[in-house]
Amino acid sequence: MQKSKKIYLDYASSALADSANPGAIHKLGVEEKNKLENARKKVADILGSHFDEIVFTSGATESNNLAILGLLKKYVEIFTNLKPHIITTNIEHPSVLEVCKHLEKTKQAEVTYVPVETNGIVDPKKIKKAIKENTILVSVMYANNEIGTIQPIMEIAKEIRHFRKTKYLVEFSRVLGLEPDQLENSLDASFKIFPLFHTDATQAVNYLPIKVEKLGVDLMSFNGAKIYGPKGVGVLFVKRKIPIGSIMFGGNQEFGLRPGTENVAGIVDLSEALQTVEKIKEKEIKRLTILRDYFIKKLYDLKNQNSKFSQVLGLGPDQLKNFDFVFAVNGDLKNRLPNNINITIPKIPSDLIVLEFSACGIYISEKSACKSGDGKASGVIKAICKKGSEIDGSLRFSMGRQTTKADIDHTIKILFKILKKLKRWYN
Amino acid sequence: MQKSKKIYLDYASSALADSANPGAIHKLGVEEKNKLENARKKVADILGSHFDEIVFTSGATESNNLAILGLLKKYVEIFTNLKPHIITTNIEHPSVLEVCKHLEKTKQAEVTYVPVETNGIVDPKKIKKAIKENTILVSVMYANNEIGTIQPIMEIAKEIRHFRKTKYLVEFSRVLGLEPDQLENSLDASFKIFPLFHTDATQAVNYLPIKVEKLGVDLMSFNGAKIYGPKGVGVLFVKRKIPIGSIMFGGNQEFGLRPGTENVAGIVDLSEALQTVEKIKEKEIKRLTILRDYFIKKLYDLKNQNSKFSQVLGLGPDQLKNFDFVFAVNGDLKNRLPNNINITIPKIPSDLIVLEFSACGIYISEKSACKSGDGKASGVIKAICKKGSEIDGSLRFSMGRQTTKADIDHTIKILFKILKKLKRWYN
Repeated sequence: MQKSKKIYLDYASSALADSANPGAIHKLGVEEKNKLENARKKVADILGSHFDEIVFTSGATESNNLAILGLLKKYVEIFTNLKPHIITTNIEHPSVLEVCKHLEKTKQAEVTYVPVETNGIVDPKKIKKAIKENTILVSVMYANNEIGTIQPIMEIAKEIRHFRKTKYLVEFSRVLGLEPDQLENSLDASFKIFPLFHTDATQAVNYLPIKVEKLGVDLMSFNGAKIYGPKGVGVLFVKRKIPIGSIMFGGNQEFGLRPGTENVAGIVDLSEALQTVEKIKEKEIKRLTILRDYFIKKLYDLKNQNSKFSQVLGLGPDQLKNFDFVFAVNGDLKNRLPNNINITIPKIPSDLIVLEFSACGIYISEKSACKSGDGKASGVIKAICKKGSEIDGSLRFSMGRQTTKADIDHTIKILFKILKKLKRWYN
Repeated sequence: MQKSKKIYLDYASSALADSANPGAIHKLGVEEKNKLENARKKVADILGSHFDEIVFTSGATESNNLAILGLLKKYVEIFTNLKPHIITTNIEHPSVLEVCKHLEKTKQAEVTYVPVETNGIVDPKKIKKAIKENTILVSVMYANNEIGTIQPIMEIAKEIRHFRKTKYLVEFSRVLGLEPDQLENSLDASFKIFPLFHTDATQAVNYLPIKVEKLGVDLMSFNGAKIYGPKGVGVLFVKRKIPIGSIMFGGNQEFGLRPGTENVAGIVDLSEALQTVEKIKEKEIKRLTILRDYFIKKLYDLKNQNSKFSQVLGLGPDQLKNFDFVFAVNGDLKNRLPNNINITIPKIPSDLIVLEFSACGIYISEKSACKSGDGKASGVIKAICKKGSEIDGSLRFSMGRQTTKADIDHTIKILFKILKKLKRWYN
């Protein structure tokens, strides 16, 4: 009965025979399923997780939505009499912040936005202080997308573990009017894991350790687009036994958490991109940290030489006196991603500077790209500004694999040319 | 200030300079944005819609979820005292059916599942009859994914329009205890468009007319994977002024309906795949209709020749008497997709037949691929079976661009070889 010719008659599952539907039980489907599961295993190995803790999504935005909304959905099914409480920071990505605001607005959850310090880093003690009996989730990003500051994820995880071990029974029993012993026996086992800890690691994966157990996280999001992989593919790490439900409905793909035919080609690309990231991570951290610090030093050198400054800009000392000129580097200088330089240049609109740079073939960003072009001030910069001070835009120079020292030199040179060109804004 | 060298310093937006973030305001971002908007225009032209009525998603499952859940979300914001009612059929894709079941289960909506007739087609009069004062949505798939039957979308649209024009004011005023005149003035204008009409056109796009205005739909879903395009990319057509909200939160991409950095490469591929579909549609319809009818005729010829049958299977007439042997073709023979043949072979498990085919290099599907492998009976086949009769599995042969007459001849030949091999199941 063997026949070498292949006849594909499953176009309704997937129109392309060479990327058959991994849900199909025929040979081509099984081959796709194997590719999918190999990619999953690859990602799991790198994260130090079980393969069934890796859920593929359409991107980090969906991963963040699924982490928070999916948990909430399950929580209200289990436990109907306690309004859930979520803790996050005031510098999260919109895909976390906007979910939280939606839940607040629709009265589905209470949210505490712990403010970061002026260096852009959150104090774990403040997170600890915010945890309450009904706190189901703490969501703190691993590294900020705008200013690159790295959050103390392991310390926050430690505080959360401490609360779980020592407080939950007492707090819950108080709320429920039960003795701790009664609670111990009656509560669903899965309930003893609250509050859960989620981190959006999208910006962190390239440069920071991502072993989930060491980090102490229960949920972790990232995507392909930021790790030299494909757009439209994301990952959500979901620790085993975490009570989480899907936010979309349909097929049972991805352990029932994410319906829809899997984008196998994209998922495979993502897994390979992640492998490459891990392979060159150490080397890139060293290389880019040197470049970053070189960039920042160049700026500070100039900041400290007012006379040279006036010379560079072609402004007289009198004109310089009229404004408090600084290259303010936003965010902590040490605890930040090796590839991130974020500065504020007062007076001159940041989008104007970006367009001038663009005209010179240098492509940088102002504020968060997800919010670019909407004309609103950056919430992150606002969060780290001193009270009452004016909120200026920010410029983000985010480096990567192709960035060289010559690029930085040229970029700084162009920056001064642009400032000179735009000096009228200082009048 | 011109410099030919390009320096990309926006890795945090998108790690790959050649697929920059379309949200970035620099030149590379603008170029991506243009690609995105050209793709959108291309799709809009083909659908005969406005460009701002095309929303790109991660697939048809997300499109269906967004259509239903997004509408419901907005509805409850506008109108808090009327529990929404949704009408659908009993043979929809799981990404519609499961959403409806979720809404029913969580008491967010009331749902009427209008049963299709035994030919797999819904009667528009039955849809009409099911419309009530609180019906916000009618969701009927354009063509079924399992049995390929084509639903009378234009007739259903006509019934809906008729209700909107003649009934809504009377029905609403009755419910609200107001005079129709009062209602006319007080109701939000957008409210006069209920019930809305959504169709899942995923299986239809290759072979049926898809001008949205002619179809009379307000919302229409499809994806790239079924039209020889990419996986992980979908479309939701959303008619202007339709009250719909996003189901995920984050950035303002896709007119605020779908957050997350756009998968531009995938979207461009989808738009080009759709162009090709339109270009060869007429030709493919003719070619495949002939092949489909040839396939079915071959089966029926055999069905009508019991003696030949027993010979083919190597069964004696006595053995044949023991079972009601039929190749039942599921679904209407005329109003079905040109590429779909769906049959039931009693007694023999359908997955077993699929695996035998697969071993011979022929790749077909049993039930819906989204549900394949889960061991459950097909809801679609169940829906078209006579009451009380046994539910057997189904085999779907879905043809496409590479399918030839020789393929069909060979497939039928192999089918009989398989039946002969598996004849023990008839004992």
